[in-house]
Amino acid sequence: MLGNFTYCNPTKLYFGRDALNGLNEELPKYGKNVLLVYGGGSIKRNGIYDAVVKILRENGKNIFEDAGVMPNPTVEKLGEGIERARQAKADLILAVGGGSVCDYAKAVSVSVHCDEDPWDKYYIRFEEPTCEIVPVGCVLTMVGTGSEMNGGSVITNRKQKLKIGHVFGEKVFPKFSCLNPEYTFTLPRYQMVSGFYDIMSHILEQYFSGADDNTSDYVMEGLLRSLIHSALVAAENPSDYEARSNIMWTATWALNTFVAMGKSTDWEVHMLGQAVGAITDATHGMTLAAVSMPYYRHILPYGLPKFRRYAINVWNVSPAGKTDEQIANEGLAAMEAWMKKLGLVMNITELGANESMLDDLVKSTLVMQGGYKVLTAEEIRQIFKESL
Amino acid sequence: MLGNFTYCNPTKLYFGRDALNGLNEELPKYGKNVLLVYGGGSIKRNGIYDAVVKILRENGKNIFEDAGVMPNPTVEKLGEGIERARQAKADLILAVGGGSVCDYAKAVSVSVHCDEDPWDKYYIRFEEPTCEIVPVGCVLTMVGTGSEMNGGSVITNRKQKLKIGHVFGEKVFPKFSCLNPEYTFTLPRYQMVSGFYDIMSHILEQYFSGADDNTSDYVMEGLLRSLIHSALVAAENPSDYEARSNIMWTATWALNTFVAMGKSTDWEVHMLGQAVGAITDATHGMTLAAVSMPYYRHILPYGLPKFRRYAINVWNVSPAGKTDEQIANEGLAAMEAWMKKLGLVMNITELGANESMLDDLVKSTLVMQGGYKVLTAEEIRQIFKESL
Repeated sequence: MLGNFTYCNPTKLYFGRDALNGLNEELPKYGKNVLLVYGGGSIKRNGIYDAVVKILRENGKNIFEDAGVMPNPTVEKLGEGIERARQAKADLILAVGGGSVCDYAKAVSVSVHCDEDPWDKYYIRFEEPTCEIVPVGCVLTMVGTGSEMNGGSVITNRKQKLKIGHVFGEKVFPKFSCLNPEYTFTLPRYQMVSGFYDIMSHILEQYFSGADDNTSDYVMEGLLRSLIHSALVAAENPSDYEARSNIMWTATWALNTFVAMGKSTDWEVHMLGQAVGAITDATHGMTLAAVSMPYYRHILPYGLPKFRRYAINVWNVSPAGKTDEQIANEGLAAMEAWMKKLGLVMNITELGANESMLDDLVKSTLVMQGGYKVLTAEEIRQIFKESL
Repeated sequence: MLGNFTYCNPTKLYFGRDALNGLNEELPKYGKNVLLVYGGGSIKRNGIYDAVVKILRENGKNIFEDAGVMPNPTVEKLGEGIERARQAKADLILAVGGGSVCDYAKAVSVSVHCDEDPWDKYYIRFEEPTCEIVPVGCVLTMVGTGSEMNGGSVITNRKQKLKIGHVFGEKVFPKFSCLNPEYTFTLPRYQMVSGFYDIMSHILEQYFSGADDNTSDYVMEGLLRSLIHSALVAAENPSDYEARSNIMWTATWALNTFVAMGKSTDWEVHMLGQAVGAITDATHGMTLAAVSMPYYRHILPYGLPKFRRYAINVWNVSPAGKTDEQIANEGLAAMEAWMKKLGLVMNITELGANESMLDDLVKSTLVMQGGYKVLTAEEIRQIFKESL
């Protein structure tokens, strides 16, 4: 904890099979007009929509709907949401869905009472809201982004070819989130394991950075061990409540700012993965999986003590009679075996990338400063090549 | 995470060497009248009092003082504090000190605008406040209780021979706390290591309970490993900032409700230790240390899988070729060696207890229901005997 920092996370979480009952505690705190925000029709098929609407009605709310939030919410959709929220005079925005829906709800919440262009203000100039913020609540149906308990909000501007995330301060955090692990049972297997790796990557991006001996590193090792174990259980049996609930909780704490306190972070894997995503439209978690092993093997020599520690503390590699390099590489090999066991995509070719795209991939990869090696363009090309 | 639960922790933390500057961000949010609550004179000797008063003045506050909060704040002192807060028309109660001062500030905060007797209402009937609550802020000078980020408040009624803790809901949590690890450097060695074991015990009381595979168990293993490591560093060099800051952060997260979510807990060591404390007036952390090994060795057979896991995941015991009992006992032996290395008191005789007190000790030990064995009176006597 060498760094100075400020920590605040006021989001109230209702967790478990009865999580939706939290709405009965929260709704009376807000006015009558609720803007119900969701994505495609899945929540109508699995009954979550009906359950939420029933509770809203029982609490005497006027329900206004804003459906069709897409996986990468666009600035045009945001404009639509702002319009609806204004017409509804929304007292509360209730997001029902995964990270994209929560991200979008936050973007609407800071824009309803804002006279400026929200894209320019929040996503280009990265300003904090100065206007009234409409409170947001979430009912989570997918895990991974941690958006249910942080200020993150990613919006895509197709015309400008930009996808930008603003991490807002705690005033924009959801006031409450309902987390029922059973809501995640029906997700298709590909999306499920992709989400597991997204969580893994969130933790590793914060773990593989810095040389100090930080409590957060120990906590992350705990979260990783829990995730590694529960992911294997869930891959065997997606309806294992214990495993899915552990994963849901781990996902929240992997990215609600706690484990990043007082330490530096990397996020280069996300930059590499997002470059792949921009070209192939592949699932986010799979793009991270496909570039991770080449990236980590590349930076291992620059962060050897941490990779050694990772092997021992996370993957139970026995250090006896081995060099630090051997120990560190055994850790990565164990990680690779786990990824394959889960059925993650291990190369970008399978995601639709090929050698002719290397130039574009390199060009669109942002270079982060917090990892064990600040990558050159040549190194980025090499990592993508090894990821093919 | 098998259990259903609600989690909310709105306290804002300012952490690091500049933590006190957080006051400049927080003070403008509250009215002019600040009740400054503290204990003995130590904050006047080490300069913290002057630094706080300077910032209060710069922010144009009227300062009212309530000094002399004792290690176990009494109900009489609480009456005094309520009176002072009313006279001051306090808009904010600023606690500067350790856990007792924070606990006391919370007790005052829920009593200032309450017409009923606070002891009866909060500590006998365990009611939540229905009156206006005066906001509390903390400047922490000792670590261990986690009071800086929870709703805990322990008050002692000497006439009734009762020391009772109420864990209030999040409305009573401090609004903010300033955590500067350097403020803990000057604590005498005996108090320092006693505090380290108090933190250790907080985690173990929540760890040694339940059979499920819970993310919280993994997180606690991480916190324990960090604490074990940093405590040894700090015992060698109390001014090691990295170690003391890790310990301060671990202490906060050991008891801010996070690691208890979705799981059962024990707290029997605290019951045994408090019985010793009531008779001997010994330092809290030392009473916990003195009874821990006999207690854990006694319950080991009832919680063997967890003690085995503890040995491997926390104490790096190699399981190869050993029975589960051997592994588990090696873990406890490693813990015992660590405790002795720190200089913790390992028996209650050294704390002033003797065989003639056994009856009283047994009588005043509360029996908890969440551990691996619900103790009989005979077992409690046996554990105290082995602790002599």
